Amino acid sequence: MRTSIATVCLSGTLVEKLHACAEAGFDGVEIFEPDLIGSPASPEEIVALAHRLGLTLDLYQPFRDAEGVTEEEFGDVLRRARAKFRLMQRLGIDTMLVCSNVGTATIDDDEVSAAQLRRLGDEAAAHGVRLAYEALAWGRFVDDYRRAWRIVELADHPAVGVCLDSFHILSRGHDPAAIEQIPGDKIFFLQLADAPALTMDVLSWSRHHRLFPGEGAFDLATFVGHCLAAGYRGPMSLEVFNDVFRQTDVLRTAKQAKRSLTWLEDQAARLPLQHPRPDGPVRLPEVAPPVAVDFVEVKAEDTSDVDVLLRQLGFTFRGSHRSKQVRLWTQGAARVVCNEQQARDQPPTLAAVGFEVVDLATSAARARALDAPAVFRRTHARDEELPTFRAPDGTEVFLASVARDEAGWVTEFEGGEEASAAPLLTGVDHVNLAQPWHSYDEAVLFYSSVLSLESGSSQDVAAPTGLVRSQVVRSNDGAVRLALNVAPQAFTHPAGFPQHMAFSTDDALAAARAARSRGLRPLPIPANYYDDLFARFDLDPAVVEDMQELGVLYDRDGTGDFTHFYTETVGGVFLEVVQRSGSYEGYGATNASVRLAAQHARSTGA
Amino acid sequence: MRTSIATVCLSGTLVEKLHACAEAGFDGVEIFEPDLIGSPASPEEIVALAHRLGLTLDLYQPFRDAEGVTEEEFGDVLRRARAKFRLMQRLGIDTMLVCSNVGTATIDDDEVSAAQLRRLGDEAAAHGVRLAYEALAWGRFVDDYRRAWRIVELADHPAVGVCLDSFHILSRGHDPAAIEQIPGDKIFFLQLADAPALTMDVLSWSRHHRLFPGEGAFDLATFVGHCLAAGYRGPMSLEVFNDVFRQTDVLRTAKQAKRSLTWLEDQAARLPLQHPRPDGPVRLPEVAPPVAVDFVEVKAEDTSDVDVLLRQLGFTFRGSHRSKQVRLWTQGAARVVCNEQQARDQPPTLAAVGFEVVDLATSAARARALDAPAVFRRTHARDEELPTFRAPDGTEVFLASVARDEAGWVTEFEGGEEASAAPLLTGVDHVNLAQPWHSYDEAVLFYSSVLSLESGSSQDVAAPTGLVRSQVVRSNDGAVRLALNVAPQAFTHPAGFPQHMAFSTDDALAAARAARSRGLRPLPIPANYYDDLFARFDLDPAVVEDMQELGVLYDRDGTGDFTHFYTETVGGVFLEVVQRSGSYEGYGATNASVRLAAQHARSTGA
Repeated sequence: MRTSIATVCLSGTLVEKLHACAEAGFDGVEIFEPDLIGSPASPEEIVALAHRLGLTLDLYQPFRDAEGVTEEEFGDVLRRARAKFRLMQRLGIDTMLVCSNVGTATIDDDEVSAAQLRRLGDEAAAHGVRLAYEALAWGRFVDDYRRAWRIVELADHPAVGVCLDSFHILSRGHDPAAIEQIPGDKIFFLQLADAPALTMDVLSWSRHHRLFPGEGAFDLATFVGHCLAAGYRGPMSLEVFNDVFRQTDVLRTAKQAKRSLTWLEDQAARLPLQHPRPDGPVRLPEVAPPVAVDFVEVKAEDTSDVDVLLRQLGFTFRGSHRSKQVRLWTQGAARVVCNEQQARDQPPTLAAVGFEVVDLATSAARARALDAPAVFRRTHARDEELPTFRAPDGTEVFLASVARDEAGWVTEFEGGEEASAAPLLTGVDHVNLAQPWHSYDEAVLFYSSVLSLESGSSQDVAAPTGLVRSQVVRSNDGAVRLALNVAPQAFTHPAGFPQHMAFSTDDALAAARAARSRGLRPLPIPANYYDDLFARFDLDPAVVEDMQELGVLYDRDGTGDFTHFYTETVGGVFLEVVQRSGSYEGYGATNASVRLAAQHARSTGA
Repeated sequence: MRTSIATVCLSGTLVEKLHACAEAGFDGVEIFEPDLIGSPASPEEIVALAHRLGLTLDLYQPFRDAEGVTEEEFGDVLRRARAKFRLMQRLGIDTMLVCSNVGTATIDDDEVSAAQLRRLGDEAAAHGVRLAYEALAWGRFVDDYRRAWRIVELADHPAVGVCLDSFHILSRGHDPAAIEQIPGDKIFFLQLADAPALTMDVLSWSRHHRLFPGEGAFDLATFVGHCLAAGYRGPMSLEVFNDVFRQTDVLRTAKQAKRSLTWLEDQAARLPLQHPRPDGPVRLPEVAPPVAVDFVEVKAEDTSDVDVLLRQLGFTFRGSHRSKQVRLWTQGAARVVCNEQQARDQPPTLAAVGFEVVDLATSAARARALDAPAVFRRTHARDEELPTFRAPDGTEVFLASVARDEAGWVTEFEGGEEASAAPLLTGVDHVNLAQPWHSYDEAVLFYSSVLSLESGSSQDVAAPTGLVRSQVVRSNDGAVRLALNVAPQAFTHPAGFPQHMAFSTDDALAAARAARSRGLRPLPIPANYYDDLFARFDLDPAVVEDMQELGVLYDRDGTGDFTHFYTETVGGVFLEVVQRSGSYEGYGATNASVRLAAQHARSTGA
């Protein structure tokens, strides 16, 4: 399908927006009127630029308060509309978005609205223009797409159809199935927006919190499926009002937007439809989510403090890379790579995560089809080259085949020790990546679409420096879990907001004891925490004493429990060891708050 | 009244919070349990610190899910409570906040809840502790303070009373008048929070958007009045969950919090009460709002570009200050001071605003009573010294007496020209001050409490770099209007987000024409704007042509119209000339969006 985007989704001037939309690969744009009004470029210049960039101008929007008005008022509507129709002729745009009346409607009567749309349609047709009538979720009288369609049916004019906007329909909880009862050629336009599940007035929700498809809670694939089943063949167009996207780099946001449509079109194409798709579906390569975290990479000018922590946690040094200044540590299925290349003056940070995938070629092709930015690392001829992409947060995402034989990248490390036969830590439970506040939604879309992960639980965790918003993306079986954490906006630290990797164990207390015997000083947990733990859970006092002695934390919910401990932070990285029992699926959010307080107290001394 | 604050209002560790609360002048604090749990300081250390700082520990909070539960569940409640009572004994805190049950309630029966509170009260009394039962706005069964009081009445236990929280009551729209039916000595605690008028789920509203009194939309003076009338004599305590305040400097936020209580106590003391206040009211000096803007100061290493703009707008150079590198320009009642002192490398910024007040001594005393930070400028012996305070946004606020004779500060300027007898510009219409995102609410409280201004209209204005949130504070008669604008968070520019002053005129077109004749090149407004203006308002084409020629913008609402133009930006400052007709009270928000786009286009060339 053709792709389009409303200019209001993006930051910058109209000219900057058009350049970005073209570079991101959109076929066309909706011209949001205020963007044109604020532009020093004339309509003719805009047309010329769009032509040069290969963009079509698909919609002029919005035209407000057109129907349900008194006859006197309607005279003014016609006058306004004529001026806009002439403008649209200059722009060569043939479709205008007409919103249901919010401000001036006084007549709640379908016949009146239909008659006025019909007269507006005559005027439009005389200018070679057609009208796409849309029910705003907060329309004075018309706030349901089914009523908008009834009015369009009554208007019965070739130049009058409907515009369907997923936000206005799904935010109100209206069933989109009735879209299939609208003839496809009367759906003049299709606007798509996702949104988080919020309980707030729909106008504020719409104006500030819309998201690109795949970033929110709406089932847009089904929505698009209904439109396709109805026979809609126009562009899929994004209309996303979002306070963050209005501020972020215009090209980067345009690319994010395009990725969301690529993902959505693929999702919709996989639905079982009654009507075949007209143009062959452009499907993305289908891949299963990664089956495991292959490795986590810590990067720094000097990673030796991390080496010490790994040794204390029982990791085995498996050798140095034969051609690069990189060292490998493993324990069970957990692998940590310490990279000192091109890291002058850098404190330790969590720089890369490798994922084991079933079909490497297809996973890499999917990432490329979603325009994931490729990363190229210096690779020596004999070394295995892993497809690598950069996530919005800067993390490098490596893909590796789970089916690799012993000749895989691990064998490039030399001079190390034998892996332990009875490791206390068995693998990577989760990886926690800090997200800049302005790329959080982009990251959710990136990880979920590129790696086929799903959004899991979301939580706010209180830190002494503000609330940390935490969103999990994970594979369905829990083998891969990423916690995306948005640091408070005012947070500043040269090493960034701390990130960490959590290793799994079957016995956290034993692991903590073993680590202690190797010299680990875990993150100190306040005695007050253990008093509270005792009050909360009625645990055996001896167990709580053990925990306190070892700096181990504990949580429980209806399904199981969670026992874990943290190392101190080194630069921007710390390590965690976690034991899950029963079906506990959380991450110890209450304890994370204690951890953040302890880390803060360590850094401020207060 | 005694003042207190919940530690959750502030950033930092518990120890940092206690220091800040004491320094800000609070009498006591509520210990928010997670702050204690996350603190490396033992309860005894906290007690010792509070004692040393002169702070009382007024409340331990919160204790959750205590009543409306099964007998088995209640056994666990008692066990948990006993542990907390022992902890409170260590802390020397005698009151615990007990929230109405959210998570575990299964029995919707006042008698059951009352019986369980009574048993909990026995246990509490045995530990020398009392329970303040509070209806959370989202309590499972108990979500109304009147029901909480009914249950407490039924419990009929000396150690069981209610806690009243303004947010939980006013957010639900519950009438606070019934508070007067609760005996004052059964109101064990009073928590105060303001909030903006939002339509969203009450839990999110409460957790993220509470404000300090005077910063939001609640009528807290009346609320407090009811509590006083009931005979409440405990502390007024703040409990404000706010995403921004959790991040901001702990001492600054504590001082802001204290200012809000000082203001609120004064507001409440002015209410006509049926019962006399027990301790004599500690009233703030009462002042009328400023009657005019006395002057606006532009500061820069070199203000000459601003001098040029002022000359072009028809201002008269009135001389240089006899002892400082400062120049004065006036036109009508508008005065602009150009200050080149201590401004090395600074681009022009809007640094200070002077206000004419009726009673200078009292206005200054009020500012000091509200702990407005004083600013001291180098003042020569012969020069008039104006009381000056620093607003949260950094603006210096000068106070001057409206009744000053001709010997006022204006006469300190020498060597200038005679003021024009027939000025086209007559005064200052409004001043527009940029606000950092993290001090916006603090600024609203500062300007409204210190200057006795009122909050006016609020609006989001779209800029190419993001949404600009704009809040007007003004005197009732409109003689003083400040627009507080929050720049998008990602905005960066060495000169800061542009600020401006708007001068009033009775004829904007004439003023623009006159300025043009003096060489002014106004901010270029796109031709597309005038096409739209013509379409929107059905204006005389000749008038629109004039406007376009002169870069003049226009707006109209049901009450009048607004005609205005802008200069180019110099550093971080630009100037506006506005003409209001009829009763137009706005600021041309639609046009502000066009202006921001034009400014952006000027700076990027796109």
